[in-house]
Amino acid sequence: MAYFKVGKIEYEGPKSKNALSFKYYNPDEVIMGKTMKEHLRFAMSYWHTFTYMGVDPFGGTTMNRHWDNTQDEMEKAKERVHAAFEFMEKMQIPYFCFHDADIAPRVPNDLAETNRRLDEIVAVIKEEMKRTGIKCLWGTTNAFGDDKFVHGAGTSCNATVFAYAAAQIKKAMDITKELGGENYVFWGGREGYETLLNTDTALELDNYARLLQMAVDYAKEIGFTGQFLIEPKPKEPTKHQYDFDTQTVLSFLRKYNLQDHFKMNIEANHATLAMHTFQHELNMSRINGVLGSVDANTGDPMLGWDTDQFPTNVYDTTLAMYEILLNGGLGKGGLNFDSKVRRASFEDEDLFYAYIAGMDAFAKGLRVAAKLIEDKVFENFKAERYASYTEGIGKDIVEGKVGLKELEEYALKNGITPNKSGRQEMLESILNQYILETN
Amino acid sequence: MAYFKVGKIEYEGPKSKNALSFKYYNPDEVIMGKTMKEHLRFAMSYWHTFTYMGVDPFGGTTMNRHWDNTQDEMEKAKERVHAAFEFMEKMQIPYFCFHDADIAPRVPNDLAETNRRLDEIVAVIKEEMKRTGIKCLWGTTNAFGDDKFVHGAGTSCNATVFAYAAAQIKKAMDITKELGGENYVFWGGREGYETLLNTDTALELDNYARLLQMAVDYAKEIGFTGQFLIEPKPKEPTKHQYDFDTQTVLSFLRKYNLQDHFKMNIEANHATLAMHTFQHELNMSRINGVLGSVDANTGDPMLGWDTDQFPTNVYDTTLAMYEILLNGGLGKGGLNFDSKVRRASFEDEDLFYAYIAGMDAFAKGLRVAAKLIEDKVFENFKAERYASYTEGIGKDIVEGKVGLKELEEYALKNGITPNKSGRQEMLESILNQYILETN
Amino acid sequence: MAYFKVGKIEYEGPKSKNALSFKYYNPDEVIMGKTMKEHLRFAMSYWHTFTYMGVDPFGGTTMNRHWDNTQDEMEKAKERVHAAFEFMEKMQIPYFCFHDADIAPRVPNDLAETNRRLDEIVAVIKEEMKRTGIKCLWGTTNAFGDDKFVHGAGTSCNATVFAYAAAQIKKAMDITKELGGENYVFWGGREGYETLLNTDTALELDNYARLLQMAVDYAKEIGFTGQFLIEPKPKEPTKHQYDFDTQTVLSFLRKYNLQDHFKMNIEANHATLAMHTFQHELNMSRINGVLGSVDANTGDPMLGWDTDQFPTNVYDTTLAMYEILLNGGLGKGGLNFDSKVRRASFEDEDLFYAYIAGMDAFAKGLRVAAKLIEDKVFENFKAERYASYTEGIGKDIVEGKVGLKELEEYALKNGITPNKSGRQEMLESILNQYILETN
Amino acid sequence: MAYFKVGKIEYEGPKSKNALSFKYYNPDEVIMGKTMKEHLRFAMSYWHTFTYMGVDPFGGTTMNRHWDNTQDEMEKAKERVHAAFEFMEKMQIPYFCFHDADIAPRVPNDLAETNRRLDEIVAVIKEEMKRTGIKCLWGTTNAFGDDKFVHGAGTSCNATVFAYAAAQIKKAMDITKELGGENYVFWGGREGYETLLNTDTALELDNYARLLQMAVDYAKEIGFTGQFLIEPKPKEPTKHQYDFDTQTVLSFLRKYNLQDHFKMNIEANHATLAMHTFQHELNMSRINGVLGSVDANTGDPMLGWDTDQFPTNVYDTTLAMYEILLNGGLGKGGLNFDSKVRRASFEDEDLFYAYIAGMDAFAKGLRVAAKLIEDKVFENFKAERYASYTEGIGKDIVEGKVGLKELEEYALKNGITPNKSGRQEMLESILNQYILETN
Repeated sequence: MAYFKVGKIEYEGPKSKNALSFKYYNPDEVIMGKTMKEHLRFAMSYWHTFTYMGVDPFGGTTMNRHWDNTQDEMEKAKERVHAAFEFMEKMQIPYFCFHDADIAPRVPNDLAETNRRLDEIVAVIKEEMKRTGIKCLWGTTNAFGDDKFVHGAGTSCNATVFAYAAAQIKKAMDITKELGGENYVFWGGREGYETLLNTDTALELDNYARLLQMAVDYAKEIGFTGQFLIEPKPKEPTKHQYDFDTQTVLSFLRKYNLQDHFKMNIEANHATLAMHTFQHELNMSRINGVLGSVDANTGDPMLGWDTDQFPTNVYDTTLAMYEILLNGGLGKGGLNFDSKVRRASFEDEDLFYAYIAGMDAFAKGLRVAAKLIEDKVFENFKAERYASYTEGIGKDIVEGKVGLKELEEYALKNGITPNKSGRQEMLESILNQYILETN
Repeated sequence: MAYFKVGKIEYEGPKSKNALSFKYYNPDEVIMGKTMKEHLRFAMSYWHTFTYMGVDPFGGTTMNRHWDNTQDEMEKAKERVHAAFEFMEKMQIPYFCFHDADIAPRVPNDLAETNRRLDEIVAVIKEEMKRTGIKCLWGTTNAFGDDKFVHGAGTSCNATVFAYAAAQIKKAMDITKELGGENYVFWGGREGYETLLNTDTALELDNYARLLQMAVDYAKEIGFTGQFLIEPKPKEPTKHQYDFDTQTVLSFLRKYNLQDHFKMNIEANHATLAMHTFQHELNMSRINGVLGSVDANTGDPMLGWDTDQFPTNVYDTTLAMYEILLNGGLGKGGLNFDSKVRRASFEDEDLFYAYIAGMDAFAKGLRVAAKLIEDKVFENFKAERYASYTEGIGKDIVEGKVGLKELEEYALKNGITPNKSGRQEMLESILNQYILETN
Repeated sequence: MAYFKVGKIEYEGPKSKNALSFKYYNPDEVIMGKTMKEHLRFAMSYWHTFTYMGVDPFGGTTMNRHWDNTQDEMEKAKERVHAAFEFMEKMQIPYFCFHDADIAPRVPNDLAETNRRLDEIVAVIKEEMKRTGIKCLWGTTNAFGDDKFVHGAGTSCNATVFAYAAAQIKKAMDITKELGGENYVFWGGREGYETLLNTDTALELDNYARLLQMAVDYAKEIGFTGQFLIEPKPKEPTKHQYDFDTQTVLSFLRKYNLQDHFKMNIEANHATLAMHTFQHELNMSRINGVLGSVDANTGDPMLGWDTDQFPTNVYDTTLAMYEILLNGGLGKGGLNFDSKVRRASFEDEDLFYAYIAGMDAFAKGLRVAAKLIEDKVFENFKAERYASYTEGIGKDIVEGKVGLKELEEYALKNGITPNKSGRQEMLESILNQYILETN
Repeated sequence: MAYFKVGKIEYEGPKSKNALSFKYYNPDEVIMGKTMKEHLRFAMSYWHTFTYMGVDPFGGTTMNRHWDNTQDEMEKAKERVHAAFEFMEKMQIPYFCFHDADIAPRVPNDLAETNRRLDEIVAVIKEEMKRTGIKCLWGTTNAFGDDKFVHGAGTSCNATVFAYAAAQIKKAMDITKELGGENYVFWGGREGYETLLNTDTALELDNYARLLQMAVDYAKEIGFTGQFLIEPKPKEPTKHQYDFDTQTVLSFLRKYNLQDHFKMNIEANHATLAMHTFQHELNMSRINGVLGSVDANTGDPMLGWDTDQFPTNVYDTTLAMYEILLNGGLGKGGLNFDSKVRRASFEDEDLFYAYIAGMDAFAKGLRVAAKLIEDKVFENFKAERYASYTEGIGKDIVEGKVGLKELEEYALKNGITPNKSGRQEMLESILNQYILETN
C-alpha cells in the first residue's frame, strides 16, 4: 500500500533542478571517515509529521491526511504507522522519535487501557522496523498535554498527578526499550511556573529531581542502557520552564548529583527563545561533556514563540555540524527533525519538500564544517590566539602555580603584551567563502 | 563645605506634598523586629552617582557637576569624595559601593602609580567614613573599561592581561578590606565572547574559575572575611556574558567546586535582560541559598539594553522585598542603587529626586511585603496547594520511599485527585489591594 | 435559572477583605462629572469568557463549564447566552463584544445555514438584552479561524476566499446593527504574511483597502452608524500582520483615503508585542484623533506571544485612563476585556475573580488619572516645559513665519537658552504617590 | 603619502584564498545590463570608518589610528580626509556619506566658527574628490550628539535648540550641495521621547513636520535637487523614536502632506530593532514608491541594541538585492556601509577585511538575486498563486465592480475554490540552491 504519490528521494547533486531530490545529502558518501548517514543520524519526529494537523492558537486544522480517513482511532493509529514508515523509507530517514501519545490514542484517565493500546501499536511498529531496518532514536512520554498536567507533572502541586506522570514514564521507558530506542528524553513542557505568587519553586525542583532519580533507578532495574536526555527550553507553554537552557539544567543536575546520568537534547528553536544561538547551546553542552542529541529545527528570530520551522539556514547548520564534529559526533544521539511544515504547507508533498529542505541544509552544513575542520581554519586561529597560555606566566596560571600576589608582581614588572585583533570580520568572510565554495 | 543646595531629606509621610522628602522611608521605624534602615541597607553607587556624566552611545556629557570644576585629577577625586559623603549624609544612605576606577584616576598601564593614587584617596574616604559613620557595602575592580580588557580580563586570550586583572583584584580586595567592606563583587563585564568563531570557551571558563579560586585563597591569606559576590548579566558589553543568570553562575560554581565561596549580587535590569523577572532571580538565589546582595535599579522591558533606571515600580520592589524577607534578609549584602539619573535629568537636584524615588519605592515595598508575610497571604495559599506532599503517596514521594513501579501501581489503582484552580487572578487582585491599602 | 454560585458583585470599598467584591469600582459614583460606569464602559468579551476552554499550543481543554453539558450545538449556544447575561448582570458589566463564530456554531462552508443559526441565536440575545438592559459594544466576524483563511481573508491569494470573507462581514454587520452595536471591529488575524518569498504585498494591501471600502459603502447603504474600528497587532498568528501598530494602520488608511471612516481599537497586549507601551499606542491614537476603543488586557513583557491576561497593573490602567480622559473619553467605544482566565484558573469562580481584578484595576486607574488631571500634575509641568513655543522665535516657528535662513540668523546671533532638566525621576515619584495615596 | 600598508583590493574570484581580495565583487562586470558598480553604488560611512574609536558604554577607545597622531584638531581632520580617500580608492568605493561633525571639529556653541571650519575641510574634500573621482552619496547634520540636543532637535521642548538645529541643517545642506551630494538624510536620533510623563507628542510631531517643510523650501530656494531621505529607527538613543519604521514615517509624511519630498534610507539593523526583517522594510518602501537608499549593516538578532556590524549574511544581502532589483535599483541612493568594525577588530587591516566582507556579501547577493529574477523563480510562483484576481470574481474585486452584497451572493452560490499550499519550505530550499549554486 502506498500512501504517497512521491517516490523515493534520491541524491542528484547540487546542479539538479529537480525539486524532489537531494542536492547535498548522499547517504553513503564518506566524509571524514564516516558515511553521511552515520554522521547525521537523521530522525523523523512522529508528532510534527504525523499528528500535527495545522492547528494554531487562532485557527483549526488545515492538513487533510488521507490515511487518517477512518473513524476508528486504533485503525487510524495503525495506518499512521504504515504511512510513517513509507515516508521514512522514501526519505531515507534511518530513525524516528516519538511520544507515547503520538502513536496510540489515549483513554482519558484509564491508564490500563491506554497502556494496552500502546502495546498493540508498538507491535505494529516493531513489524515495520523489522521490515525496513528503521530504528528508534528515542522515546518519551507526553506529560504536558492532558489537563491533569495543568499545574505540571513532576512539578505538579498535586502528588497524585506526580504519580500518574511517573507511571507514564515507566510505560514509555518500557516501550522505548522494547523498540530498541537508543535514548529516552525528558522535555518538561509543564515543569515550570505560571506565577510565583502560588508556586513553591524549592519543593517543585526537589520533586523533579526525585522523579529523574526514579527514572535512573528504574533503567538500571530493567537494564535499559539508552542515554537519558533533557531538553532545555526557557518558556512556552509555561511562563518559566525550569529547564531554561543548558547551563540551567547543568546547575540542576549538579545540585542533585544527577550529572552523570543525563545529557542534553538541544533544540535550535529553544536556544533562540533563551536568547542564545543554536551554536552557543551546542558549544556549552560540548565543553561540559553533555551534548547528547539535537532537535533540528529553527525558530524565527523576529517572533517570540516556538515556530518549529524546518531548518534551512546553512549558517546555522554549518556551525551546528562544526560543534557536533568537534564533539566527535552525537554518540547515541542524532538529528531529530522536531520541525513541522507551515500551517499553509498543508499538502502531502510539503512533507517531502520540508524534509528535503532540512536534510539538505544539514548535509551541506556537514560538508562545510568538515572542510573547515580539515583545513583547521578556526582551530589554527584559536591556537595562536591563546598561545600565551602555553608558556611562561600563562602556563603558570593554567597549572595553578601562581596566585594574586605572584601575578601582581608579574604585572608590576612586565605590564602587558599588546593585544591582537580578534579579526571577527575576516573570520566571517572566510566562513562565507567556505559555505559558498565547498563542494 | 556644602556642595548641594538641597538639605537633609526627612521622612514626612505619605500625605506630604513636599517632593524633596521621604514618604515611605522612615529609617528608624521598626517593621518585623528590625528598623527599616536595617532591613534595607541602602547603598550609593559611586560610579553612577559621581562619575556618570550623561554620555550615551550617541551623545556626550550633559551633567555639569560644579564640584568637578578643577583640572587636577586627584583634586577632583577628593572633592568627589566630599560631595559623595555630603550627599549620602543628606540622603541618610548608610553604605556605598565602588570600583577602584571610580574613586581614583588611573594612570594607563602604570599599576604602581595607580595603586598609590588609590591609597591616597582611600585615606580621604576613611576620614569621611569616620566622620559620618557611613560604611562600605562592597568594593570591586573595574576590569572592563580599559582597552587592555578588550578580549576579557579573567577570560582574556592574553595571559598578561589575565595577570594584570589579577593584580587589580588583589589591590581592590586590599582596599575593600582597608575600608571595612562587607562584600567583594565580581562583575565580569568583558568575561564572555563576541563571536564563537575565535573563542575557546572551555579554556576561558577554566581560567575564570582559576581566577576566582585565587581570590578565595588570597582572602584567606589576608583575613578578608567579607562575602564574595558574583553579579549575573546575560549580555552587554559582550555578545554573551558567561555569568548569564543565577542558574548559569551556579552551574559554573558547582562545576569548579566554588559554590561555598560565592553568593549572587542580583541586579534587576540584568534579570530582565536575561528574560527573567527580578523576583525570579531573587527566588532562584534564595532557594539555592546564595542570595547575597542586590543591585537595585530597573530596566525598561521595551528596550534591550541596560538602562539602569532608578527603581520606582512598587510591584517590583514589593516582590523583591518579599523574597528578601523570606530569605531572612540579605546578611552582609544590601540594596545598592546601581541606578543612574536619566541623561536628561542633568541637574544636581535630580540626584535627590532619583534617590528619593528609589528609596521610597523600596520602603513602600518593604511595608507591603512585611504585611503580606505577617498575614501569610501567599504562604497559606501555598501550604494548602502543596498539602498532598505532606501525607500519603505525596509524603512517600518526598521521603524517597517509592519508585516508578510503586507509583504506577498507585496510579492504576487510584487515578488522580482532581486539581484545583491556581487562582492567579485572585492572587494578583489581593496583591493589588495590599499594595494600595498598606500603610 | 442560575448557572453561577457567585452572587452579584457589589462595591464594598478598598478596606473590605471580601475577595468577591469591588474595592474601587463603584458604578454610580461620579468622577469629573460622569459616573464611573459612563467613564469606563466595560464590556465582556464573549470569546474569552464563554468559548475559551483552556486549550494552548501544548495542551487540551481544562475548563469544565457545566452550562456546556449538552451535545446539541445550538442548545449549547443558547445556554451560553443565558450564562453570559447572568454573568454580566452579576458583574454589572453594561456591554458585550462578540464575533459571529462565538455565538453560533458554524456549518463548515454552508454559509446559508450558518447565517440562519446566527439569526436564531441573535433572537435569544436580543431577548436577554431587553431583559437586562445590557448592550452590544461591538461585533465582528471571525475570518481567521477556519482553514479557508489559511492564506488570509481580505488579503487571501484566493479571490473566492476574499468573497467569502466579504459575505461574512456583511452578515456580521447586519447582526451588529440588529443588536444595536455601537461599533464594528476589524481584526485582521490572518491579514499579513508568513513569508515574503510567496507574497505579493502590494496586491494584498490594495485588496484589503478594497474590502474596507466595501464595508464603508455597505454601512451607508444599510444605515449602520456605528464606528468602524481597526485593531492593530504586529504578529501572531501571522509572522507579520499588516496592521502592525497605530501608525502603520494610519499610514494605510491615509494612503487609501479611508482615514475618516476608521478609528483604532487599541489592545494592551498588542501594543507590547509591537514593542510599544500601552500608553504609547493610546497616545498616538489620541493625538491623531483616532482613539476609538480599547481591548483591556495585558501581556507579559517577558513573553513573546499574546497572553491576553486580565489587566491588574495599576500603572498601566492609570496611564491608560489618563490618555482616555485627555481624549474626552472613548465616545462610542469602551473597555472590552479581551482577557482570558489563565489555563490553570479553570473554575467558574475564577471568571469572577478575574473580572473583579480587571475592573477594579481600571477603576483605581480612573480615580488616579482623574486626580492627576484635576491637579494638572503633568499638564502644568509640560506647559512650562514647552513655553518657549508660545512667544518669540518659538511662536514664529509654530506660526510658520520663519525658515532655515531666519533660524540660522537667530542661532548665530542668540545661541541657545539653556535646557532644563526633564525631571523624569521626580515625575515617576509623584506618579507613585498619586497611585498610592489617591482614594 | 600612504597611510595603509594594504594595497588596492582586486577581484580574484571565489576560488582565491587571498583574504585581502574580492571574491564576488567585480566592479565592471555586467549583470542584467549594468555594471556591478552601478548596481551596488557602495558608499563609505565617514563616521564609523574614520571617527569611531572603539568606545562602547562600558569601555574606552581601542582603535589606534596613526593618521590621528596630531594634537591639532584641524590638522587631524585633514589627515583623516586623506586617509579616507586613500582607503576608498584602494577599496574601489565610489561614494562616501558624512555628517558635518564627522569631517570637522565643532566649536561648542560657536556656530560661526564651526561653519568656517566646515568650509575649510570641505575644500580639502573637494580636492580629493576631484583627484579620485569619488563622489558624495549623501550628507547630513549631527543634531543628536551635543548636549544641547538632550531633549531633541526638531522636537526639542526648547525653541532656541530647534533654531540651532535648523541652522545646522541649512549649513549641512549647503555643503552637501557644494560637494554634489545626491541625497540629504534626516536621522532623528533624539527625535522621540524618554518618558510620556513630560512629553507633548502632538506639538513635537507638528514641529518636526515644520522643520522638514523648511528643508524642502530651502532646497527649492538654493536649487538643491538631491533626494531627501528619512532613516527609520524605533529606539536608541531615545526610548521611542518618532521615525519607528517605514510605515510610521509614511504615516507622518502623509499626515503633513510631505510624502512627495521624502524617501526612506533603510538600515538593516534598524529594521530588526523594529522587529522587522531587513527585506520587510525594503519591501514596504518599495511598494509605496519610497525606497531611496540603504544603510548596509546588520544587527545581532540575539541583542537588543544597534550593533552596526558589517553585513556578511548572504541570505540578507540576497533578499535585499532582490527587493532593490525589483525596485529598478536605488536611483540616487546607494549602499552605504553604516557599519563599524568590532571593538576588538582594532587594527587598520580590519577596515579592509570588514569592507571586503560586506562588499563581497552584497556582490554575491546581487549575483543570486539577478539569477532569481532572470529565472522568475518567485515571480512565476506568485503569478500563479494570485491568478484568481485576473479573471472572474477576482477581477471584479480588483476593478471595484462588486460590493459586500454581490460577494455574499457569489459566496452563497459558489462557495470557495480550494486553496493550494503556500510551499514555504520548497521555496526556501530553492533559495538555498540559488545561493549555493549561483556563480
